[in-house]
Amino acid sequence: MSSFSWPIRIYYESTDAGGVVYHAEYLKFFERGRSEWLRHLGFEHTQLKAEFGIIFVVRDLHIKYLQPARFDELLHVVTSLLEVGRSRLVFEQKLQRGDEVLTAAEVEVVSVDCETFKPTTISPTMKQHFLEIK
Amino acid sequence: MSSFSWPIRIYYESTDAGGVVYHAEYLKFFERGRSEWLRHLGFEHTQLKAEFGIIFVVRDLHIKYLQPARFDELLHVVTSLLEVGRSRLVFEQKLQRGDEVLTAAEVEVVSVDCETFKPTTISPTMKQHFLEIK
Amino acid sequence: MSSFSWPIRIYYESTDAGGVVYHAEYLKFFERGRSEWLRHLGFEHTQLKAEFGIIFVVRDLHIKYLQPARFDELLHVVTSLLEVGRSRLVFEQKLQRGDEVLTAAEVEVVSVDCETFKPTTISPTMKQHFLEIK
Amino acid sequence: MSSFSWPIRIYYESTDAGGVVYHAEYLKFFERGRSEWLRHLGFEHTQLKAEFGIIFVVRDLHIKYLQPARFDELLHVVTSLLEVGRSRLVFEQKLQRGDEVLTAAEVEVVSVDCETFKPTTISPTMKQHFLEIK
Repeated sequence: MSSFSWPIRIYYESTDAGGVVYHAEYLKFFERGRSEWLRHLGFEHTQLKAEFGIIFVVRDLHIKYLQPARFDELLHVVTSLLEVGRSRLVFEQKLQRGDEVLTAAEVEVVSVDCETFKPTTISPTMKQHFLEIK
Repeated sequence: MSSFSWPIRIYYESTDAGGVVYHAEYLKFFERGRSEWLRHLGFEHTQLKAEFGIIFVVRDLHIKYLQPARFDELLHVVTSLLEVGRSRLVFEQKLQRGDEVLTAAEVEVVSVDCETFKPTTISPTMKQHFLEIK
Repeated sequence: MSSFSWPIRIYYESTDAGGVVYHAEYLKFFERGRSEWLRHLGFEHTQLKAEFGIIFVVRDLHIKYLQPARFDELLHVVTSLLEVGRSRLVFEQKLQRGDEVLTAAEVEVVSVDCETFKPTTISPTMKQHFLEIK
Repeated sequence: MSSFSWPIRIYYESTDAGGVVYHAEYLKFFERGRSEWLRHLGFEHTQLKAEFGIIFVVRDLHIKYLQPARFDELLHVVTSLLEVGRSRLVFEQKLQRGDEVLTAAEVEVVSVDCETFKPTTISPTMKQHFLEIK
């Protein structure tokens, strides 16, 4: 399984009074990772919405917090595609300091109609792209 | 000039590694204050958008940080309308710990078309409501 | 099992360009729910940190997104304690529109030393309070 | 006056239900710009705190919203130092789409003791660095 890495710098905006990254902020890092993974494959969210009227939404997310990430650190988020379904994708994502895993998540996203939020089928072309790099 | 007060509790989500509220978070508190002021006058953002296709957007904001707000505190935001123009409103807003002012802002919002983002005229009915309590 | 309910109003700050609440924001609502549950039991985060040097951090979180929450809605978060361990608490939390569940989560938090982030034992007094209302 | 440019990609996390970037998020982009400007000069926030016990906090911020920034865009924040005082720095910062200015701000930050939040004098060495590139 191939994976895609994207750098994440920790700014004040992501920390809390505990002195480390606020637990909800990791979800933003993972979403940046998925967006850049998609862009890397040649797709843009805005183009998918404009051309096909679809957006990807998160349906299920399970995250484990192993070690705190700290202010000013340069980390990276590693994104791997685990499954491709009719309308859903399942990712494994990790925020890492070098090889050390700080948080690990399994994230299920679904392709939905941007108006009705009903699931839509992922096009064969897009699916093909996803499967080639899986 | 009458003013409208709304309680704000400080949760972890609003703090940063400096141990106090992150500077951008105060803008959220002020927006909650303006939204509740509007609701108090009988208007809802969603109704304004659905019926008239307008939304209010911030055009200019000047904020002074006087004292830090801290985790777990119960504060209140005080909102006063300073000016009502053809399409714009100017507010004075303060985040207070009792009578002590922690941050003070002057905020200009503009009524715009929700599609084009072009300024629209505030309706006479709405203006009347605003002026009565100014 | 008793549960604790706390109101959540959806402001612009929590929404995204999809027109609904951004998926990471629900974690903030759940944290507000846990903080208010703790306060309801007579404990304050700041007091626990000052007196005992402990803070609660999230170690594991599993969230299911069932229905989108929308701008301007008044919802409530329902918090129930599932388990009390030596240093950990497990909660079931739901964001609801009336009786309809929009998102549901199971959240494990751990009592840790605020300097070392190492797990600490939850005091018998506190545990007693938690168990009584479980 | 020299200026420092830093790229900003707009993700879902920064947008709101109006379909554009939420007004408080621009403050985060500006802070990223100032942090990277500081790093570019050879200083790190964490080092300043550990060695000298100082942090920079925002004391005054005036922002003008000229054009909305949109989801998925690649923009850049341009940071210029306007003034260096005994304990304060004044910056002009702009978020730009190419040469087009979307938001413009004047931001005053103050060097404070990280415990007392009282203003501290900026060291001659640091001041020298700041002045050379002003």
